[in-house]
Amino acid sequence: MRASHFFISTLKEAPADAEIISHKLMVRAGMIRRLGSGIYAYMPMGLRVIQKIENIIREEMNKAGAIELLMPIVQPAELWQETGRWQKYGPELLRIKDRHDRDFIIQPTSEEVITDIARNVIKSYRQLPVNFYHIQTKFRDERRPRFGLMRGREFTMKDAYSFDRDVEGLKKSYQIMFNAYVNIFNRFGLKFRPVAADNGAIGGSGSHEFHVIAETGEDALVYSRESDYAANMEAAIALPPVQERAAPAHTMQKVPTPGQKACEDVTTFLKQPLSQSLKVIAAIRTEIPEGQPGHFAVILLRGDHELNEIKTQKNIGEFRFASESEIIHHLGCPSGYLGPVGLQNRQDLALYADHAVTVMSDFICGANEKDMHFTGVNWERDVPLPSIIADFRNVVEGDPSPDGKGTLAIQRGIEVGHVFQLGTRYSEDMNATYLDENGKPQLMQMGCYGIGVTRIVGAAIEQNNDERGIIWPLSIAPFEVVLCPLGYDRSETVRSTADSLYGELKKLGIDVIMDDRGERPGVMFSDWELIGIPHRIVIGERGLKEGKLEYQGRRDREATAVAIKEMVPFIREKLPRNG
Amino acid sequence: MRASHFFISTLKEAPADAEIISHKLMVRAGMIRRLGSGIYAYMPMGLRVIQKIENIIREEMNKAGAIELLMPIVQPAELWQETGRWQKYGPELLRIKDRHDRDFIIQPTSEEVITDIARNVIKSYRQLPVNFYHIQTKFRDERRPRFGLMRGREFTMKDAYSFDRDVEGLKKSYQIMFNAYVNIFNRFGLKFRPVAADNGAIGGSGSHEFHVIAETGEDALVYSRESDYAANMEAAIALPPVQERAAPAHTMQKVPTPGQKACEDVTTFLKQPLSQSLKVIAAIRTEIPEGQPGHFAVILLRGDHELNEIKTQKNIGEFRFASESEIIHHLGCPSGYLGPVGLQNRQDLALYADHAVTVMSDFICGANEKDMHFTGVNWERDVPLPSIIADFRNVVEGDPSPDGKGTLAIQRGIEVGHVFQLGTRYSEDMNATYLDENGKPQLMQMGCYGIGVTRIVGAAIEQNNDERGIIWPLSIAPFEVVLCPLGYDRSETVRSTADSLYGELKKLGIDVIMDDRGERPGVMFSDWELIGIPHRIVIGERGLKEGKLEYQGRRDREATAVAIKEMVPFIREKLPRNG
Repeated sequence: MRASHFFISTLKEAPADAEIISHKLMVRAGMIRRLGSGIYAYMPMGLRVIQKIENIIREEMNKAGAIELLMPIVQPAELWQETGRWQKYGPELLRIKDRHDRDFIIQPTSEEVITDIARNVIKSYRQLPVNFYHIQTKFRDERRPRFGLMRGREFTMKDAYSFDRDVEGLKKSYQIMFNAYVNIFNRFGLKFRPVAADNGAIGGSGSHEFHVIAETGEDALVYSRESDYAANMEAAIALPPVQERAAPAHTMQKVPTPGQKACEDVTTFLKQPLSQSLKVIAAIRTEIPEGQPGHFAVILLRGDHELNEIKTQKNIGEFRFASESEIIHHLGCPSGYLGPVGLQNRQDLALYADHAVTVMSDFICGANEKDMHFTGVNWERDVPLPSIIADFRNVVEGDPSPDGKGTLAIQRGIEVGHVFQLGTRYSEDMNATYLDENGKPQLMQMGCYGIGVTRIVGAAIEQNNDERGIIWPLSIAPFEVVLCPLGYDRSETVRSTADSLYGELKKLGIDVIMDDRGERPGVMFSDWELIGIPHRIVIGERGLKEGKLEYQGRRDREATAVAIKEMVPFIREKLPRNG
Repeated sequence: MRASHFFISTLKEAPADAEIISHKLMVRAGMIRRLGSGIYAYMPMGLRVIQKIENIIREEMNKAGAIELLMPIVQPAELWQETGRWQKYGPELLRIKDRHDRDFIIQPTSEEVITDIARNVIKSYRQLPVNFYHIQTKFRDERRPRFGLMRGREFTMKDAYSFDRDVEGLKKSYQIMFNAYVNIFNRFGLKFRPVAADNGAIGGSGSHEFHVIAETGEDALVYSRESDYAANMEAAIALPPVQERAAPAHTMQKVPTPGQKACEDVTTFLKQPLSQSLKVIAAIRTEIPEGQPGHFAVILLRGDHELNEIKTQKNIGEFRFASESEIIHHLGCPSGYLGPVGLQNRQDLALYADHAVTVMSDFICGANEKDMHFTGVNWERDVPLPSIIADFRNVVEGDPSPDGKGTLAIQRGIEVGHVFQLGTRYSEDMNATYLDENGKPQLMQMGCYGIGVTRIVGAAIEQNNDERGIIWPLSIAPFEVVLCPLGYDRSETVRSTADSLYGELKKLGIDVIMDDRGERPGVMFSDWELIGIPHRIVIGERGLKEGKLEYQGRRDREATAVAIKEMVPFIREKLPRNG
């Protein structure tokens, strides 16, 4: 490609609404243009990256035996009514009416449509297993679209759906997809980590997320440095403590703590470590009718721990946090001064504790009285342990790994893929059956497998950038090599050397762009560093006099002089597939 | 590809709603599945054809210097309000509201979005000309979707938009696209014809349609067998007759024609040729207020000619046909008995005639009296010619070609492409300007260029099919070659021959599918004939004993025996690109 035949449009300044680096750099590099909130046009430079990502996904999906089709963007509401998602899906689902006032949706995902196809085209066990995928535009009407392609409304996703005869088959299909995802992310050249995810009703290893590692990532990933254990924060298991509870050393005392409510404030005020305090969370269990015992729930955590809402929901059912007035109404005391002492005989509330709480001694907790706390509180002696003890908290760095191997570490990630064992969640609602060997109808076992194509563009940049701009991994760079001739329009020797090098690289199938725009060297270099092309070759008169060209990798601090004749083999070595 | 790793799903019967052959065959061949009215999933076999079509388009667009980007499907209403299309576009435009009650549309086309991009990224004359294109899903909410992919609601289209400094530049860009389209349709291997189309406000050669020739086509294409002249029926010019009007031979007589209203009935009743009668059409000119002179219009045509509504609109402005009650109210006589005699002095209506009418003599027309006609009517002698004479009719086979070379012929076509010189239609409304050499802002000259990707699939089948199924042109066939081993699972020699032939063809880059499903020969053959693979090779034990394989082209009536060793070169010769 010659730059004069392409469209390059870089900006000095990022737009005001760009909050994160990938969004800023994508706009500045001329890869995307905003048309509305969360809606972008992919400009030529951006589309090249997207197409490279799609091609890698397509190749690996095909290699894994998945079959490409294409499902529509506008989907009839009837199918979504069959599974109940028409009702249950929130306002993210864009619902529309056609000219005849019939209901449709713009697909955020395609479980219903693929299940409808499967129940119609799959008749017999002989047609299973099968895995269909498509790469298609999706729409989710986010309340607050932001972060450019990271949380847009219109985006591109690859979604695959496997159909199997039984759970064993599903597990095999799932593993094949898991492996394909590992291959795909390896080929992207991104540092990534698959982590176990919460998978709702289905137990076991039924769901994994694939995250691109980036300090700016929204998700916390938990992993063991000593083993393969990895999970997202929602799903990471906190083991019960192995140590014994220490014997009481102090007597329980009520102390005034005027205006000190948060555990941090109370312990600072009392000059005690945060871990010595008890965090008390009041919740309303929405599945239990108001007025029934257990409707109001109190959960105890160690002061330095955080509540894990997903685990909490698994332990106590659907819930919401109690409001200040509900707390005062039920406990007769404002939040910030709550504690278990005195609640032990209350039949109208449910009391829970996290495992870590059970080994605390001489701890601090609220006295259920404004501006007052207890110190030196001990289980059994001063107050009985709650009867229900479970895992309620987020793990922290240094916790033991649940597989018994080493301790846990935490890093940030950006979720770009998700594989999920659906089981019969959709095939049951939609009666998607096949006939088994005995001619009996059986529900198909389904899995679904998504990759956020456009999100990967953002994630790749979050992981790979510097003060000069984007640093693309080779396999998804808009171009692999850029040629920067200095004075292409003035110097005959520069032009002829550049043209012949360009021709040679093209012939080798190398994705090269020649900057023949006639810009000044400074503009040229900063444009291509901003855009992030991995390999740059400068052709200048001064170098040519000595028979040299200049090579600089995007991460290199300095250029390397390379003899003209050596340049092609030199570059080929940098491009493994051509090596 | 092995059939066992692909998804083949053929049907014996076409669905009841399939009215045309391409729709029937596409459903039977398992290429598409209907999900709702005018909404289809493209099944794996269908998607392969679509992708081949897209790749050819992409290659030729790139070769022609156009630059690919991707514009969103959901577009903000504001842009459509700027050009007035938000108001003007009919109910085909799917209008939606997001969760914040803001207006959006699902794109049927992207003039507004590309013009918005252009006005933002194009600053200077140095950036022109430029041509952006995308291949994207479109939606048009057709009142009555039908004919499968031929008139669906959701469909795929390639649309390109050129931006130029001036009209001269636009004409060049237009010609480049015209030539690219010729290359694209040639590569599809389809019989096609570009025809001049009506282009509204812009004169000259500002618009062409590309039609796939098919007897079942909805459009009539007019062309000269002796020259390059070609136009669609709407735009084809009917020249004024060159012969003189014959002298009157009869006297005008009023004759009873009880119940005879249509020209056909009247002339049959009177035993006269149809061309001897006058067709009288009453219209309401909607741009002229009711009650004003000229609001009611009468147009005269030769009895065997048809009114061309596009030409009529150009001649008399926006109009609609008068209702029966309006006709009776204005002319005091029911339709079917109208004629010019007696209307000559009416100041309250406008009287028009088609050129062909002016050379009629001794003609028949209504007497403006129920059940009565005149015969032997002659211009000037009995009634003056209307003052406005113009081209109001559709051309007919045998009319002289407007370029003076030969006579016109008519064939049927399916519109699959359209190139159009927009001029400043959009750049003016949206103030899309660039700075010229003198730093003065100038409006960009635009062109737009569409190809209906999914429609081509239907059109190709309408053109190429027989009683056994589809006959794909090689370049867009889902597979180029199918191998049909007889007893792949039983016979070792069959399997090893098939496997090694399959491997050899794959290595040559030939798009081959091997039918290893284990179906009976009859099922296998009829499946692949229905699906329409151009080349079939049968590997059977009987043939192998004599060292032979069987080749049959999709259009061949009989198979040809080919020696095993000869088969690869034999096939390569059938695939020109591999030859």
